[in-house]
Amino acid sequence: MIGSSGISIDHLGIAVASIEEALPFYRAALLPNEPIEREVVAHEGVTVAMVPVGGSRVELLEPLHADSVIGRFLAKRGPGLHHVAFRVPDLAAAIERMKFTGARLLNEPRTGAGGHLYVFVHPASTGGVLIELIQEQGS
Amino acid sequence: MIGSSGISIDHLGIAVASIEEALPFYRAALLPNEPIEREVVAHEGVTVAMVPVGGSRVELLEPLHADSVIGRFLAKRGPGLHHVAFRVPDLAAAIERMKFTGARLLNEPRTGAGGHLYVFVHPASTGGVLIELIQEQGS
Repeated sequence: MIGSSGISIDHLGIAVASIEEALPFYRAALLPNEPIEREVVAHEGVTVAMVPVGGSRVELLEPLHADSVIGRFLAKRGPGLHHVAFRVPDLAAAIERMKFTGARLLNEPRTGAGGHLYVFVHPASTGGVLIELIQEQGS
Repeated sequence: MIGSSGISIDHLGIAVASIEEALPFYRAALLPNEPIEREVVAHEGVTVAMVPVGGSRVELLEPLHADSVIGRFLAKRGPGLHHVAFRVPDLAAAIERMKFTGARLLNEPRTGAGGHLYVFVHPASTGGVLIELIQEQGS
C-alpha cells in the first residue's frame, strides 16, 4: 500500500559478510515467490541479493573486497543495517522540504546505474540511520 | 503492495534520544497525511511516535529513562535502527520455516499490547539485524 503522498519504503540495505549464509533466513522469513537475483556491482565493490517483501525489498550487500564501502562498514561495525531507502515521487520537492529541517545531504541528486535519481542524508540528521531517497526514472 | 506471500514490512523501529528533534526530518521526508500519534508505553519504558509510510511505518522510540531497553541501547550504540518488523499472515508457519535455517528465536510467540502475536529473532541469525515477526490479531 502506498499512501496519498506516494512515498514508500523502497529497500533496506543490510551489510553481510556472506550472502550465502544470510539468505536462507530471509527466504524462510519473507517467502519470496521468485528466484532471488544477485548482481555484482563492481564499481561499488559489492554483490547484491534482492529479496522482495511486499512492495519493498531487503538488499543483502556483500563486499567484493575489504576496501569498499561495505567492506569498511563490516570491519568497523560488523554486519547489520547499512541504509534505508525511501521511494519518493518528486525528489527535488523532498529535498526542499528536508532542507527546512536542517537535514544534511551527503551528495547532490545523482543518477544511479538503473537511471533513478537519488540522494543520501547524513545519519546525524535522521536519528542515526543512513537514509537514501530515490525517485524512479519517469516518475 | 503485498506480494502473494502476504508478508510485508510492518515497521522500522529507530531508537532516538529525542522524538522532538528527530520528528521534523521524518515529517519532511515521508509527508504523513495524518497527525503523528505518540504513545507512552510505560512497561517498556518508552515513548513511541509512529510515522506512516506506504503500508508501513517508522517508529521513533525515545526512552522514558536510562534503565530501559531503548535507554541501554542508546547508551551502548547511540541512536539508530533498533529493529525491523515484518508482518506475516501465519506466525507459526514462519517460525517452522525459520527453524530449518537454524534461526535463534529470542522468545516464544507472545501476545503484545495490541493483541498481536510476535516473536523476535536474534541478530546473529539475520545478518546483524534484530528482527520481529508480527501476526495481526484475526489474521
